[in-house]
Amino acid sequence: MPVSASISPLAPKTIPQLPVVAGVRLATAKAGIRYRDRADVMLAVFDRETSVAGVFTRSKCPSAPVEWCRAQLKGHFARALVVNSGNANAFTGKSGRQACALTAKFTAAAVNCKTSEVFLASTGVIGEPLDAHAFERVMTDLAGSARPDGYSEAAKAIMTTDTFPKLATARIRLGGTDVTINGFAKGAGMIAPDMATMLAFIFTDAPISAPLLQSLLRDGVVDTFNAVTIDGDTSTSDTVLAFATGAAPTPGIRRCTDPRLGPFRKAFNAVLADLAEQVARDGEGARKLVEIIVEGAVSKISARRIALSIANSPLVKTAIAGEDANWGRVVMAVGKAGEPADRDRLSIWFGGIRVAHRGARDEAYDEAAVSAAMKRPEISLKVALGLGKGRDRVLTCDLTQEYVAINGDYRS
Amino acid sequence: MPVSASISPLAPKTIPQLPVVAGVRLATAKAGIRYRDRADVMLAVFDRETSVAGVFTRSKCPSAPVEWCRAQLKGHFARALVVNSGNANAFTGKSGRQACALTAKFTAAAVNCKTSEVFLASTGVIGEPLDAHAFERVMTDLAGSARPDGYSEAAKAIMTTDTFPKLATARIRLGGTDVTINGFAKGAGMIAPDMATMLAFIFTDAPISAPLLQSLLRDGVVDTFNAVTIDGDTSTSDTVLAFATGAAPTPGIRRCTDPRLGPFRKAFNAVLADLAEQVARDGEGARKLVEIIVEGAVSKISARRIALSIANSPLVKTAIAGEDANWGRVVMAVGKAGEPADRDRLSIWFGGIRVAHRGARDEAYDEAAVSAAMKRPEISLKVALGLGKGRDRVLTCDLTQEYVAINGDYRS
Repeated sequence: MPVSASISPLAPKTIPQLPVVAGVRLATAKAGIRYRDRADVMLAVFDRETSVAGVFTRSKCPSAPVEWCRAQLKGHFARALVVNSGNANAFTGKSGRQACALTAKFTAAAVNCKTSEVFLASTGVIGEPLDAHAFERVMTDLAGSARPDGYSEAAKAIMTTDTFPKLATARIRLGGTDVTINGFAKGAGMIAPDMATMLAFIFTDAPISAPLLQSLLRDGVVDTFNAVTIDGDTSTSDTVLAFATGAAPTPGIRRCTDPRLGPFRKAFNAVLADLAEQVARDGEGARKLVEIIVEGAVSKISARRIALSIANSPLVKTAIAGEDANWGRVVMAVGKAGEPADRDRLSIWFGGIRVAHRGARDEAYDEAAVSAAMKRPEISLKVALGLGKGRDRVLTCDLTQEYVAINGDYRS
Repeated sequence: MPVSASISPLAPKTIPQLPVVAGVRLATAKAGIRYRDRADVMLAVFDRETSVAGVFTRSKCPSAPVEWCRAQLKGHFARALVVNSGNANAFTGKSGRQACALTAKFTAAAVNCKTSEVFLASTGVIGEPLDAHAFERVMTDLAGSARPDGYSEAAKAIMTTDTFPKLATARIRLGGTDVTINGFAKGAGMIAPDMATMLAFIFTDAPISAPLLQSLLRDGVVDTFNAVTIDGDTSTSDTVLAFATGAAPTPGIRRCTDPRLGPFRKAFNAVLADLAEQVARDGEGARKLVEIIVEGAVSKISARRIALSIANSPLVKTAIAGEDANWGRVVMAVGKAGEPADRDRLSIWFGGIRVAHRGARDEAYDEAAVSAAMKRPEISLKVALGLGKGRDRVLTCDLTQEYVAINGDYRS
């Protein structure tokens, strides 16, 4: 399970330094779960009762930590988050559930909270038992060394095939006070929006109630994490958790009519979108970031389905890897989506250049200009169906030989 | 659009020599539609009114020839079939419809029939206009040179990225007379069972009425062509046509209660299954033929959906390319299928060896034996859900770097 030697060419030029979020402290450790000589566990400690919200994979075979988190969310409050890489604790049966319970017990003892206030996520190989004692050995040190500025190290500790750590931050004025929203994520393959893709954790000092935070998160993932697909495969472990410490000195936000909610939502969604785009930029083997826009569909849902059919088509993705504006394959992918479409109204653009118009090749298009557009690292592909007002956008990447190489020997 | 230099390692050891079917004659020609120095058009002439049946892609953006055939099927009879490779005549708008009408006109004149008795299929690049005059130039020669033993050449003329021609035959005793069923097919990518995958043509001298032949074909593709997937992509041009000349000296079969229908159906389905398996064996870049069996599902349809979710998962397919019995990814693919599944009842076999049992790794399994099984060119993957009696089987292949290479520069 080697971490890719080279950083994705689509990686952001700079990795942001995240500011402190009052009430959050982080630490990492080398627990030796699978990797040697790198941190593979991170602990986030919340100094006071912190509102928590979560969205998870829609897989019918979710991992043990996903089931654990779903159960603890009912309590509305978190005091600790433990995430490991190297082992997903998925499809591990009864021993997986026991590993969660034990990890929570060790953590609760170290940070002095209830086990129900401990949230867990794991990523890595599926089907291998996870030894919770690996956490026991490092937990006291983790709790003792947690510090408010530990985001970069935490984001690195949860990486698997990621080639760069994914961090984002936003700062807004809320009721006369500055509040911060930090987030980090991991994910590079087994990514499809059936809930939310990969692991992502959001931290804010804004005083948002847990039910309101849940509603923000549920809405926020729709056009961010759920609009990214790398390979159409959906992990058993996808988890996005949001934590609001409430440490900012402003009265609590508990009602959806609170006027402070609008600007908060905007900044919160921007952090989600930033992280989701970074996941697409780190698609396994990716050399192209591809934005797919579908408009003129009968509804937004229909546009989403068509966009995903295009984004997940191996033939479209390999054509883009080959820098080939093969709009015939786009037609194929529209056709197989099963959504209303009329071949003779269909128009297609690559890189802003219309290559097909109303069901046939656009005779006016300049092949050289399209070829130049296809050579860029970021490619926009637009389809207009001419049926209605439904519009949607998803992000994906190309399918390269390196994707196959990475995934052909991941486990062995 | 190079034809692969090397033959798939999964190709059948021998290519069958097809016998004559009374009433069918075939010819090929080099029309220069896209390829140079190879035959790219085939004509089949039916000497008398021949029952015809067809099933087609479910794409919402079908090719012009698909629409043409659908319309002509209403007449129940065929006198000619024209198939070309190199250009799919798909997404070609009005000019595509005109190309079909013109091709039918040239063919009808050459074989002396009505245009409505001419059936058409095209495969190759989408979105490029097809010049029907390419057919005009060769049609008289084709009609003049058609002979009863032309199957091998015909199967070769319709190949695109196929690495070997796909032929199958069966002979049965029917009402005191021998009848023959011949078939050939092409297809190596853009293959998913939403109807029927690729192009395939079946010829028999059995005297089957058109409605009965349609019913046989519609039922027959379900567990053959519709149970094969290479990449989950569905062509705009998928076409399976069956022709029954009725030249065999036995009374016509017109009722579904005819006792001769049982043995005929069995042989007919065997030809479909043989061709469908050959398509899987020629999956672009394939190095492994993979049989996926799902049992214990709540229904056959549910089993089919789960089997296809596994078969189309890039992560499962790349793991198989890497000879890795990565059953964790199988769990993932079961989970994302959206069908009823209970993680804690799930068992998984690779090559007949149980690697996971009731939601956890099977502690008894021998890693060396599984590794040996994964090195074979034919791999069986079985999932037992433990919920009901639904069972299904699909065929697929692995996803290799060569698939990406083939599809990354197909058009350019």
